[in-house]
Amino acid sequence: MNHDVPTLVGRARAGDPRSVARLISLVEDGDPRLPEVAAALAPYAGHAQVVGLTGAPGVGKSTTTNELVRHLRATGKRVGVLAVDPSSPFTGGAILGDRVRMQEHTTDQGVYIRSMSSRGQLGGLSAATPQAVRVLEGAGCDVILVETVGVGQAEVEIASLADTTLVLLAPGMGDAIQAVKAGVLEIADVFVINKADRPGADATYRDIQGMLGLGERAPGDWRPQVVRATAVRGEGIDDVVAAIEKHRGWLADTGNLVARRERRAAVEVEAIALGVLRARIGNLREGTALPTLAAQVAAGESDPYAAADELLKGL
Amino acid sequence: MNHDVPTLVGRARAGDPRSVARLISLVEDGDPRLPEVAAALAPYAGHAQVVGLTGAPGVGKSTTTNELVRHLRATGKRVGVLAVDPSSPFTGGAILGDRVRMQEHTTDQGVYIRSMSSRGQLGGLSAATPQAVRVLEGAGCDVILVETVGVGQAEVEIASLADTTLVLLAPGMGDAIQAVKAGVLEIADVFVINKADRPGADATYRDIQGMLGLGERAPGDWRPQVVRATAVRGEGIDDVVAAIEKHRGWLADTGNLVARRERRAAVEVEAIALGVLRARIGNLREGTALPTLAAQVAAGESDPYAAADELLKGL
Repeated sequence: MNHDVPTLVGRARAGDPRSVARLISLVEDGDPRLPEVAAALAPYAGHAQVVGLTGAPGVGKSTTTNELVRHLRATGKRVGVLAVDPSSPFTGGAILGDRVRMQEHTTDQGVYIRSMSSRGQLGGLSAATPQAVRVLEGAGCDVILVETVGVGQAEVEIASLADTTLVLLAPGMGDAIQAVKAGVLEIADVFVINKADRPGADATYRDIQGMLGLGERAPGDWRPQVVRATAVRGEGIDDVVAAIEKHRGWLADTGNLVARRERRAAVEVEAIALGVLRARIGNLREGTALPTLAAQVAAGESDPYAAADELLKGL
Repeated sequence: MNHDVPTLVGRARAGDPRSVARLISLVEDGDPRLPEVAAALAPYAGHAQVVGLTGAPGVGKSTTTNELVRHLRATGKRVGVLAVDPSSPFTGGAILGDRVRMQEHTTDQGVYIRSMSSRGQLGGLSAATPQAVRVLEGAGCDVILVETVGVGQAEVEIASLADTTLVLLAPGMGDAIQAVKAGVLEIADVFVINKADRPGADATYRDIQGMLGLGERAPGDWRPQVVRATAVRGEGIDDVVAAIEKHRGWLADTGNLVARRERRAAVEVEAIALGVLRARIGNLREGTALPTLAAQVAAGESDPYAAADELLKGL
């Protein structure tokens, strides 16, 4: 499986799941060949629709993702799933279909499912996730679902970089307030009130609608949709898909699709650049230049600023 | 007081306390003229003996410093004191003699006393303290006492960068164990058991001697001295000074003085270099290059690694 990059990208393009898995592992591991991978994948950027899905633990993200995959597959679309969870017990280097609840899709060649971590990746998940999206785009996925745990700021940001961002809530958890606190209210294009058969679902629905009414919105701005679903029974998933499609249409009509993708690319480029700078900082400690320069400073032959300049020139 | 750097350095060299104070303020503030200051001071490096003094709050650091200053002044030496305390209520830009307990020395032109912070300094206290030492060296100080609060890792490290490092303990605080936990056991050249008239002083003395007996030491290595003092009554200060002098002699005889000063310079240069890199990271977010590059990536005309390279070239 240690093929060269052009071979791997070629096979991934042809839909070989093992090559797709291998490329995503390269992304996670921060493999030195990543620049080559990125260059090879660049021409295929922009084909797929990227849908972010976030929410607090227990709101039913995986079940909803599972049902969305089923629904999208039924319409013939190729689907990729990236489950971004820094605390995931699944080490990404392994097999496709690494989550038990997704097992029904693992024998379906039209679905790629992958838990993502960012073990060695310069720039962490902020860089790794968009790069994994590129791999799945290159492999011909029509829709890519990026599921994040929705707890940390980084995960919320990652979900918000999608073309369309779903925020899942469930009744009876003071969710509307929690959503405000977690900063997810601002990023949601579609709210999904999951477990809508439970007591309190109507209250949560009203809370969210109420909060949306308070927000200021310019004419032509997107008004977030609020959809009720009971994913565990497959109910309301077509409404979720319809809301995603409606948002997709709005993005295309208003030019916001390009703006979002440029924002996603900016986060990715910046994360890589920051990672490079951080690696350089690490190199400072290990190099041989510092002791030589320090000796000159201690002897009064140089001053610390001139020495620091000299040190940075050598990076 | 807004003189040019050559004038300020010239006046500081001549012993003008206001110019010394102004130069240390420039260090604290991370003034853009610092490279110029550093270059002007470089030829005067290495004259002064630098003594670090650290210990937990309440062990009597300020009292001990005060007594050391009195003792050193009595022998005709010019003395500088840098009190490094990140939580200090004294904003460094102000006057000399900014600590009440040091007031007896404030009218003595042979003593500079200064509380240090590192408000704007690239590289924080790790860079600012050695630079302030350089200012005091340039001003003709024979001995510079660097007093740190001895709680955080950074403060311990700063004290350890002196030619000779004193660690203060006081009886009855489980000090020997605390010293191990705080990581100060390794850095002490001289232990001062202060408040030696209190119950438990002998036990603390034995604890420290016992721990020193456990450590491995090659032939020719320095064996840390353990000295008892009651600084508040001025008792034992001559023993502390004798221990400092003994260590100074060992440093000179073994070549370790140069090694220590090169280590101090290395920390200083590295801290400045890290500060420069961190500032560059900050600049990434504000520049105009990133949006342009991100648009190329989003359009598939470039890839994120090539774009990150391009971004870093512009720094």
